[in-house]
Amino acid sequence: MQRFKCKIAYDGSQFSGYQVQPSKRTVQSELENTLKKLHKGQEVKVYASGRTDAGVHAKGQVIHFDSPLTIPLERWIIALNSLLPNDIVVLEVEQVEDNFHARFQAKGKEYRYFVNLSNTRDPFQRNFSYHHPYKLDIQSMNDAAKYLLGSHDFTSFCSAKTEVEDKIREIRKIELIQQDTMLIFRFVGNGFLYNMVRIMVGTLIQVGSGQINPGSIKEIIEHKDRKYAGKTAPAEGLYLWEVYYD
Amino acid sequence: MQRFKCKIAYDGSQFSGYQVQPSKRTVQSELENTLKKLHKGQEVKVYASGRTDAGVHAKGQVIHFDSPLTIPLERWIIALNSLLPNDIVVLEVEQVEDNFHARFQAKGKEYRYFVNLSNTRDPFQRNFSYHHPYKLDIQSMNDAAKYLLGSHDFTSFCSAKTEVEDKIREIRKIELIQQDTMLIFRFVGNGFLYNMVRIMVGTLIQVGSGQINPGSIKEIIEHKDRKYAGKTAPAEGLYLWEVYYD
Repeated sequence: MQRFKCKIAYDGSQFSGYQVQPSKRTVQSELENTLKKLHKGQEVKVYASGRTDAGVHAKGQVIHFDSPLTIPLERWIIALNSLLPNDIVVLEVEQVEDNFHARFQAKGKEYRYFVNLSNTRDPFQRNFSYHHPYKLDIQSMNDAAKYLLGSHDFTSFCSAKTEVEDKIREIRKIELIQQDTMLIFRFVGNGFLYNMVRIMVGTLIQVGSGQINPGSIKEIIEHKDRKYAGKTAPAEGLYLWEVYYD
Repeated sequence: MQRFKCKIAYDGSQFSGYQVQPSKRTVQSELENTLKKLHKGQEVKVYASGRTDAGVHAKGQVIHFDSPLTIPLERWIIALNSLLPNDIVVLEVEQVEDNFHARFQAKGKEYRYFVNLSNTRDPFQRNFSYHHPYKLDIQSMNDAAKYLLGSHDFTSFCSAKTEVEDKIREIRKIELIQQDTMLIFRFVGNGFLYNMVRIMVGTLIQVGSGQINPGSIKEIIEHKDRKYAGKTAPAEGLYLWEVYYD
């Protein structure tokens, strides 16, 4: 048995999220079906750095799996990509130590969120960015973002359904980049809770719209209660951009 | 009754082409359904500059229709876009003379074709460009394209099913633009026959691959027979980019 680590990308719009669910089309089930074909019907379990929700995309998701096959590394990519559906692609394959784990050894992640500010909807962007045709005060949003930086208990910024106990996460970088009519949020942190990026983006958009005061972000964090933060921004704007390992 | 001209864009990937077909989702039927809603159930016929096939996109398709409604022009766009599905958008509306006709008065068109030359498939581009991960000799393709310029009988470059009698068309411009791994073809002409752009692209790609000699384009045109030209390039790379009027 050898352990393989893969970097993959997918267009999330036609998936019911990453994780296997009965009778739903998911990224994990497509990966496992493809590996099963390559292993003559034998089940191969795939482990990812974390789940992504329905409609959420990945530019750099990381997975690992074990295989007894002795295929040269450069053939792995070709074999996998020729069998995978065309909304998933394997970008890199490497052989790793037997104790490597895509989830438990992830040291950090980058997510990006794309907001299309143009007046008219773009039919080519409908699954790939959130259309928000209203003026935003970027300066207030940057001011507000500073309160999110660092280590905090992010209970207010995660879905109330979250079952994880430790809700302390460290955000290392938040950057807002404007390219023409596209506003791009970059979030780099040691980990993110369920819906955390989408709630931070939704809240920052409400700051930019003048509905939430930049300074009140500090209090929202201190409340440790989801109901104090802003709306959850829609899935289509979100991309798991990169996963960091040592 | 007033006549309205609209510039529209659509992502063709979820349509069975532009033209109405029984029990198929088409651009025309979505437009006519939307206008019917705005007209309290009354049928409104929509005329386009021309059809596009299943999977073909438009950045600047032009349509016209007649309406007795006295809505201010700037409200037309808002009303139409709020009712249209999100893979079609109205970009411009103007009131025109009663004798304006989107098809008969079109003086020319621009089509663009996008070829993704990168080694790995891009899941985000799967419906929006043709993935052709092979080396192309752009110089030979440019040489070949010169033979297509000007007025010719394009029988060899249109689907054998074409029922139009006059197959003479004038191509005013062919341009090949390389942007990173994307090769973009621009075709400007007074009109294009059924599948003509896709057959020209397919043929030029075979020239770039060394399968067809640039000089033999002249003979292919002279044969006036579809079987001498190259393959029809796939629909997903093609965009109706602009329609010209006086």
